[in-house]
Amino acid sequence: MSIGQYLIQRLQDYGIDHMFGIPGDYVLSLYSELEKSPINMIGCTREDCAGFAADSYARLNGMGALCVTYCVGGLSVCNSIAGAYAEKSPVVVVTGSPGLKERTRGALLHHMVRDFRTQYEVFEKFTIAGSELSDPLTAFSEIDRVLDACDRFKRPVYLEIPRDMVHVVPPVAHGYRGVVYENDQEATAEAVRETRQLLESAQKPVILAGVEVHRFGLQDELLRLADTAGIAIATTMLGKSVISERHPMFIGLYEGALGDQAVTQFVEESDLVLLLGAFLSDINLGIYTANLDPTRCVNATSEELRISHHHYHNVSLRDFLRGLCEAQLKPANRPIPESLSKIHTAAIDSEPGDGGLRTSWMIGRLNRTIDGDTIVIADVGDSLFAATELVIHERGEFLSPAYYTSMGFSVPAALGAATARPDHRVVVLVGDGAFQMTGQELSTLIRYQHNPIVIVLDNHGYGTERYLHAGQWEYNEIQPWDYGKVLGVYGGGRSHRVATELEFETALQEAWQQSDRPHLIHAELIEGDASNTLRNLAERMGENVARRPVT
Amino acid sequence: MSIGQYLIQRLQDYGIDHMFGIPGDYVLSLYSELEKSPINMIGCTREDCAGFAADSYARLNGMGALCVTYCVGGLSVCNSIAGAYAEKSPVVVVTGSPGLKERTRGALLHHMVRDFRTQYEVFEKFTIAGSELSDPLTAFSEIDRVLDACDRFKRPVYLEIPRDMVHVVPPVAHGYRGVVYENDQEATAEAVRETRQLLESAQKPVILAGVEVHRFGLQDELLRLADTAGIAIATTMLGKSVISERHPMFIGLYEGALGDQAVTQFVEESDLVLLLGAFLSDINLGIYTANLDPTRCVNATSEELRISHHHYHNVSLRDFLRGLCEAQLKPANRPIPESLSKIHTAAIDSEPGDGGLRTSWMIGRLNRTIDGDTIVIADVGDSLFAATELVIHERGEFLSPAYYTSMGFSVPAALGAATARPDHRVVVLVGDGAFQMTGQELSTLIRYQHNPIVIVLDNHGYGTERYLHAGQWEYNEIQPWDYGKVLGVYGGGRSHRVATELEFETALQEAWQQSDRPHLIHAELIEGDASNTLRNLAERMGENVARRPVT
Repeated sequence: MSIGQYLIQRLQDYGIDHMFGIPGDYVLSLYSELEKSPINMIGCTREDCAGFAADSYARLNGMGALCVTYCVGGLSVCNSIAGAYAEKSPVVVVTGSPGLKERTRGALLHHMVRDFRTQYEVFEKFTIAGSELSDPLTAFSEIDRVLDACDRFKRPVYLEIPRDMVHVVPPVAHGYRGVVYENDQEATAEAVRETRQLLESAQKPVILAGVEVHRFGLQDELLRLADTAGIAIATTMLGKSVISERHPMFIGLYEGALGDQAVTQFVEESDLVLLLGAFLSDINLGIYTANLDPTRCVNATSEELRISHHHYHNVSLRDFLRGLCEAQLKPANRPIPESLSKIHTAAIDSEPGDGGLRTSWMIGRLNRTIDGDTIVIADVGDSLFAATELVIHERGEFLSPAYYTSMGFSVPAALGAATARPDHRVVVLVGDGAFQMTGQELSTLIRYQHNPIVIVLDNHGYGTERYLHAGQWEYNEIQPWDYGKVLGVYGGGRSHRVATELEFETALQEAWQQSDRPHLIHAELIEGDASNTLRNLAERMGENVARRPVT
Repeated sequence: MSIGQYLIQRLQDYGIDHMFGIPGDYVLSLYSELEKSPINMIGCTREDCAGFAADSYARLNGMGALCVTYCVGGLSVCNSIAGAYAEKSPVVVVTGSPGLKERTRGALLHHMVRDFRTQYEVFEKFTIAGSELSDPLTAFSEIDRVLDACDRFKRPVYLEIPRDMVHVVPPVAHGYRGVVYENDQEATAEAVRETRQLLESAQKPVILAGVEVHRFGLQDELLRLADTAGIAIATTMLGKSVISERHPMFIGLYEGALGDQAVTQFVEESDLVLLLGAFLSDINLGIYTANLDPTRCVNATSEELRISHHHYHNVSLRDFLRGLCEAQLKPANRPIPESLSKIHTAAIDSEPGDGGLRTSWMIGRLNRTIDGDTIVIADVGDSLFAATELVIHERGEFLSPAYYTSMGFSVPAALGAATARPDHRVVVLVGDGAFQMTGQELSTLIRYQHNPIVIVLDNHGYGTERYLHAGQWEYNEIQPWDYGKVLGVYGGGRSHRVATELEFETALQEAWQQSDRPHLIHAELIEGDASNTLRNLAERMGENVARRPVT
């Protein structure tokens, strides 16, 4: 078995049936091996889009991978992979590089930046493990080590394979032996005991669940703990949909002063907050408006376990959560206010009329349409803020770059989601600025016959920035596009241009019914529109709201 | 004067009147200062496009700059800046970052990858100098140091300004004092003496000029040397158009076995090759088909000076070239064969007929159309190979990423070129695959009322790869687009779809006449078309030519 074949086999072992990327000469030998293999290679329009697609695929599939050429390919995915690192998405970056033999000729090789290690050194900054497969004796074990790290830490890893190594058959026998990681069992037991005591003596406990619950597949454990101990669950913005938002113990998104104030009150009045797998980032904390007293928090993530002001080391999130499940906690009897339990059936929106389009109203209508086979992907800006108002039916069916907040994530991510879940309908919420960045990946969605509904929220520029930075600035303007016409360029799908509630509702229902093709709904928002969440944010930041006339 | 204002002033000192980029919250305070300043901020659709535009602007203007936000912006320009580094283009990367005060709150900040230094450390890999402007006492001198390095080494530099430092007024007086770099005058004199002796005793000397002659503004010195010493000039592919290709001493591009064989013969039969500012890269060397004996070479670049097998240190390219000019060399009397002097008037192409479109034929027609006010930009692949067959009228009027060869360079680069030279017409040669990557930057060209002619060479996929890697591979296919329709999306310009010689000629002439708007010519090439240069290359590589049926 050659190094290339072994790599392909091991990727399949982790459930990777599709990869994303663009070929280039330093990686053609591997591409040819991939094309002969059971892995389906999805060709994208741009490398960074392949990165976003692989990230999204990884979030839904457990692991994802992309394959790009040296430097011009690899250095084009830096931002996508940095986002996957920041938000803990297990993406395998596979890249070709110049053959070892050709490096000795003395000439500069094309695509080379400074020296042969430049790309490797760059990726060290946002991958959890990496290797250059330049030695046949260690290539197999290096592949094992790196993929294990991806799986264990849920962060991107990097594998670089010189083009003349792809077909090399190492002169060593090799069978994969899993890596054994040691956790501290005594520390785990003590942490569980202490947390149990805190939970049982608390009058008003709450669980705040984050995205790692989903990444590490701990949703069942979380629900078991919530059900048996009778503790309500709120989630962070990045953790939105780690469990079904229709579950009776789910009370909503906690976003400090930004979100639903009933949720904020419930969480902040708690005398014990059990944070499970949550990133304490500025956006997750409602741009610093969160008010959580550390002395009343148990904060468990895959990287640390902190109770009040002391720490336990080498306790895995999984072991800790399972320990709590098995501790048979005395049920808490904290009642969930009616205002919070209502969320499961809420679709608070007026019937469509001739009025102009407001994002929050559209979200309300979308709430009535989506079902358990829908995946919603929100881009950043008000697409993300507004999407927090959605109620997601099944776990893991909402994707967004809520921490790293990289514009242009959503359309390529729809490709990854549709590839991983071909039986689901993908709905994309994307602003006009973000669509101009990566909207061409709709071309690939059309090419592979997917049927997403892409809703372009057109507010004529970088609308969130207008809200968050006072003044009328020209730099927030962008060229107005006729977004629906891109489908004519890419050769597929149906477009709808809407400016009133009734038009939107009609387009949405038609798109929903016509599930044999992609739809693009170009929604022209009313002047100065902002979701409820963004309005809350802007008010909190104490800045004047800058509006511009719609031209 | 605040740190932000000083930075803006110093950028203007280096002739930067335009910057490219996309705003984001960590850089909005600087953006607002820029909007109030004389510098025009050109908003792009994507950050990597802003990088390519700034690179192209830098090549034509002497220095260029972009301004992007932290990580999601900065890490999106890695590839563009790596290309500028590899090809020595003086681009200033200006980026915002989280305010120093907000870093101490303990929460993770959005857009952050690993720690606050991640982006800085990444850019160390492909910039020649950089600084984080976090100390008011040193901010002014750091700006000076970094911009000086950009100007001196003609490579990208990096300036990161925390958002709460933009308006800080340093408590120190400051006046710019230029940096003095010391070269070795005695080594320079000895190198000039030795080179003079070699040139005067050579029977068949030739000059091979590279891109650094243009970057360091040494074209006049080069021509003076060639004229007084009577030595013919060939250029490398990356150095194409360092001097006017209609100059009597210019004999063509030297590309080893790839290019015009008369040029190759002339260069390789020389008993002394004076290489001036040329990168010895694989593509510049005709994919290793160049045959230059080092013992008969004087190789002078901004980084090294090597004669035969010995080296001189600390000799600047400028001083060396000026020394040769002043040495009053005895004129060489090597005749230039008629076949080579013919190039200045050559437009070897047949009259248009009903035949299908071949790239090399189109280049011939283009040769008859372009003039001294035309800038031609070639993307990579056969756009680049074919463009080597063009004769450029004025110096510096051909741009391409001929060494780093990053697909998607050309359309954003057209934005940079049109901005730097609004009185010129920009012609872009771009393949379909490259256009899918960054074609949306045409939107910005339309927005700022430029009038490029973008010729999309449509060969239904990654055509160069089909030629260079045997076999029929699906991964070379891409989604067919109706390229001309993008203009309807972006709201401007005129499109032409052509498949015959006559149609192309008509479209080209119409586009040429209608100079008040952009034009996109979608040229459908005949099946399996390749330029003469690419055919030579494919034959040299000894691979079978793989063709695919056009569908």
